[in-house]
Amino acid sequence: MRTLTPQPLTPEAFAPFGEVIFADPAKAMDINYGNTVRFNDLARVAVDGGHAIVSLFRSIPLEPLELKIMERHPLGSQAFMPLNGRPYLVVVAPPGDLDPDKVQAFLAGPNQGVNYAPGVWHHFLLALGEVSDFLVIDREGPEDNCDEVELTEALAIAFRE
Amino acid sequence: MRTLTPQPLTPEAFAPFGEVIFADPAKAMDINYGNTVRFNDLARVAVDGGHAIVSLFRSIPLEPLELKIMERHPLGSQAFMPLNGRPYLVVVAPPGDLDPDKVQAFLAGPNQGVNYAPGVWHHFLLALGEVSDFLVIDREGPEDNCDEVELTEALAIAFRE
Repeated sequence: MRTLTPQPLTPEAFAPFGEVIFADPAKAMDINYGNTVRFNDLARVAVDGGHAIVSLFRSIPLEPLELKIMERHPLGSQAFMPLNGRPYLVVVAPPGDLDPDKVQAFLAGPNQGVNYAPGVWHHFLLALGEVSDFLVIDREGPEDNCDEVELTEALAIAFRE
Repeated sequence: MRTLTPQPLTPEAFAPFGEVIFADPAKAMDINYGNTVRFNDLARVAVDGGHAIVSLFRSIPLEPLELKIMERHPLGSQAFMPLNGRPYLVVVAPPGDLDPDKVQAFLAGPNQGVNYAPGVWHHFLLALGEVSDFLVIDREGPEDNCDEVELTEALAIAFRE
């Protein structure tokens, strides 16, 4: 079993896979007569031929934390925002044929969401420590929009000391 | 000044204005090999001629809590989900010409979001007690998509004892 060490989630490191959703000062604008700061357009929702829906995912920590399957949604983006103020794990690989050597892990903070670009390989939602809720924005439509690939070698996660 | 007393936010009471976003057991489905409960399709995102974006709103409580302006977005829905586990205030009126006598207030719980249907009149985001963050899913596009109307008589809010 191969072992991945999660790196901190930053917009730069995550750019090949999508967007990090957070209160980015560079995107702040005052609205509502000064009563609201809008951090605008943090993630674009892609819904090729379908429409966007809002759902809530209640994620149970995976035990043991061994990753065996990756998935992708070719027709739409998929955004996750934590609602419980807890960190979680993000595991992704570039679009195209899945290359197991290019799987990367990120440790997302409690105030960070992610938006997977269409076609980006990712492991399903990985809450850490306790059951956690996430708001999810993704695509609904008649076409099949989920490919799954089983990893020939499972991946373990080793957190930094 | 007229006074509104907020009612509890329920899907039934809010139906004329849009959807309440919460972990509705009637919409629960097991996915991800039993590691996730997906509360599916809690809100539909409407983006007439535009596209959906995800933003973050940081809302400063309105002081004094006197409501003077209502707004609507004719071309798109607008969804809000609290990220700080705090209650907030939702003030709405039916679509069409704004009827001040039909303005209603709801007290939203910390685990409840709202999705305003296109054209529904609403006050801008009303955090209570302290600055609060919300995830927002709404429409972006070239057309003007915000009408504002000033209320001839301001509205005060009286919370139930």
